[in-house]
Amino acid sequence: MTVETADLPDPEDLPADPEDLPPADSNPGWLSADELDFVRGRLPIVYVEAVPVRVDGHGRVTEVGLLLRSTPEGVMTRALVAGRVRYGESLRDALFRHLENDLGPMAFPLIPASPVPAQVAEYFPMPGLSPYIDERQHAVSLVYVVPVTGSCNPRQDALEVSWMAPEAALAPDVLAELGGGRGRLLRQALSSVGC
Amino acid sequence: MTVETADLPDPEDLPADPEDLPPADSNPGWLSADELDFVRGRLPIVYVEAVPVRVDGHGRVTEVGLLLRSTPEGVMTRALVAGRVRYGESLRDALFRHLENDLGPMAFPLIPASPVPAQVAEYFPMPGLSPYIDERQHAVSLVYVVPVTGSCNPRQDALEVSWMAPEAALAPDVLAELGGGRGRLLRQALSSVGC
Amino acid sequence: MTVETADLPDPEDLPADPEDLPPADSNPGWLSADELDFVRGRLPIVYVEAVPVRVDGHGRVTEVGLLLRSTPEGVMTRALVAGRVRYGESLRDALFRHLENDLGPMAFPLIPASPVPAQVAEYFPMPGLSPYIDERQHAVSLVYVVPVTGSCNPRQDALEVSWMAPEAALAPDVLAELGGGRGRLLRQALSSVGC
Amino acid sequence: MTVETADLPDPEDLPADPEDLPPADSNPGWLSADELDFVRGRLPIVYVEAVPVRVDGHGRVTEVGLLLRSTPEGVMTRALVAGRVRYGESLRDALFRHLENDLGPMAFPLIPASPVPAQVAEYFPMPGLSPYIDERQHAVSLVYVVPVTGSCNPRQDALEVSWMAPEAALAPDVLAELGGGRGRLLRQALSSVGC
Repeated sequence: MTVETADLPDPEDLPADPEDLPPADSNPGWLSADELDFVRGRLPIVYVEAVPVRVDGHGRVTEVGLLLRSTPEGVMTRALVAGRVRYGESLRDALFRHLENDLGPMAFPLIPASPVPAQVAEYFPMPGLSPYIDERQHAVSLVYVVPVTGSCNPRQDALEVSWMAPEAALAPDVLAELGGGRGRLLRQALSSVGC
Repeated sequence: MTVETADLPDPEDLPADPEDLPPADSNPGWLSADELDFVRGRLPIVYVEAVPVRVDGHGRVTEVGLLLRSTPEGVMTRALVAGRVRYGESLRDALFRHLENDLGPMAFPLIPASPVPAQVAEYFPMPGLSPYIDERQHAVSLVYVVPVTGSCNPRQDALEVSWMAPEAALAPDVLAELGGGRGRLLRQALSSVGC
Repeated sequence: MTVETADLPDPEDLPADPEDLPPADSNPGWLSADELDFVRGRLPIVYVEAVPVRVDGHGRVTEVGLLLRSTPEGVMTRALVAGRVRYGESLRDALFRHLENDLGPMAFPLIPASPVPAQVAEYFPMPGLSPYIDERQHAVSLVYVVPVTGSCNPRQDALEVSWMAPEAALAPDVLAELGGGRGRLLRQALSSVGC
Repeated sequence: MTVETADLPDPEDLPADPEDLPPADSNPGWLSADELDFVRGRLPIVYVEAVPVRVDGHGRVTEVGLLLRSTPEGVMTRALVAGRVRYGESLRDALFRHLENDLGPMAFPLIPASPVPAQVAEYFPMPGLSPYIDERQHAVSLVYVVPVTGSCNPRQDALEVSWMAPEAALAPDVLAELGGGRGRLLRQALSSVGC
């Protein structure tokens, strides 16, 4: 199913690697697969999403980074940096954690000083309520444009980051490669920074 | 406890009036008290908050509406319009529902065209993580400034809406009457509209 | 010249109708044609622009209004509401004046409470400095999305307002009908309201 | 006069240092004193203002930088980074030029990716039109919060930059030390970044 494959796996859904295992003192924000299923059917889940960009010395956006991966069927899809906010975790910390998870520890993101997002996206599992679809859940996602200053080396080996000019990222065929309606969201996020 | 009393009761916490009862076909977004307790300890809850304002014909804010009520101990406290977003409910619909709940059906709010909030507040049950405290839960709240054009008659009889000039609402003693750090939030929301 | 024709005539450039004549006590903000020429070559001019929209009861944008007119060559072009801010005039008053000028006195615009624009556009007479071109001047334009609730009857008879769904307004061929780069600006303004 | 003294001298008003002299090919954006007087009485002037801040690794504002100087009468006043946008100059370039002028060449400001300002301030020479007063002119000022990462050494020797926690900068006595209503503007700008 195209939406599901275009969506990056949440660390919670993956065979856990050591860093994602619940700590010994069992943080209550870590949810078991059953618990996650339960809450996903009962209330909206808080997400953060980020559009990584390169900027010049005066803050102009020169390049946009999109995650690229191959689905099990061999189809290349694009994605934004995205993930759930955990219990007790601030939006900034969640944003930083997911940026590091998706772009590697040397990306050096500059998280904006303002907590007000560039855009808010509402994902629903049922079509027709919003332009954004997520079959797993109702998610309210705060979307930020985040300049990165270092080098990006996605930690999960199926992923790459491809950089392109803002005009290229806004091309209809590129926007169409983002699943769940996120092409529209990328267009809105880039619009917020004047692209 | 000052924070708790300053916070308006969530419809979920009250003896349900008929409008708040789950419908016969049991919307999965309605949570029992036990379920609400469980999720509140496991993941951030999505909230919307609104600062009702009166504007003149050119959009300038002329008055700010603050909810006023008496705590069980007889202390007057002030509050913003606020409430949880339910599963399957859009932010706009939740905002409208809580405005109607707190200001009555004749308030005629003009919900902003942009879904991007004036400010985002993160409430934690544990102090020190953020200026905003909610002892019941970790909540991520999207805060909007909403012009209202009709007459306000709070439905819950303990409540009143008091209107005052923006300068009066920004006075330190008024801001201090909002619990959980919301005085700061009111100041931020009014700043966003040039007050 | 396409850019010039797509741009609505500034009241200052037209054979003055009585309402646009300088008042008897000669407001210093009214500039003669020579003075306007002088300042346009010497410093950036402050503009406001507005994208008129229709919203539903919960603030969702349902329609976008674009000004339509025929050039002297008979080509139909589209335009935003736009105009100069005069000396001593507030941004809100300028916005209201130009909305009334372009949409008529019964449009009843709801000017946003926040003075922060949805987008800022920088127009230069020389190409390459920005995506926005205005051959007459360097202009810094604050762009707002403005819901209108009444009926629109453009005062200048060459003009009409055509209403269309946001998706239609965002179609590449419609965006291309706005001159001076304003198609991009319309896309950015609509992005800010979630379209 | 308190307002005038609190306001940093515009390079145009000062005995020109070599960098501020018009280039040999006489940029039309450079105005003689007489021309500046003329335009200041005829149309609004475009300004940019910046609140310099220090941020931590997750973007939280930890310190606010205020310019400090002694008036001819020996009164210490505070100011924001501010200055005029020249003909043909982009907002970003003007912001960078004035940051460098006021904070020195080693401040390394991170100009935000979005051209939309944190706030817009309208200064009028006549009182009562707005909370912001500038006796010299009607100015429309786009105000940005700008993280700086280097060391600040104001180039003009009467100036210093004093850094303080956001809470200290928001103290009423500090806000009152900014002239022309800019205390309110500083409060609004800091509100936009969650302070």
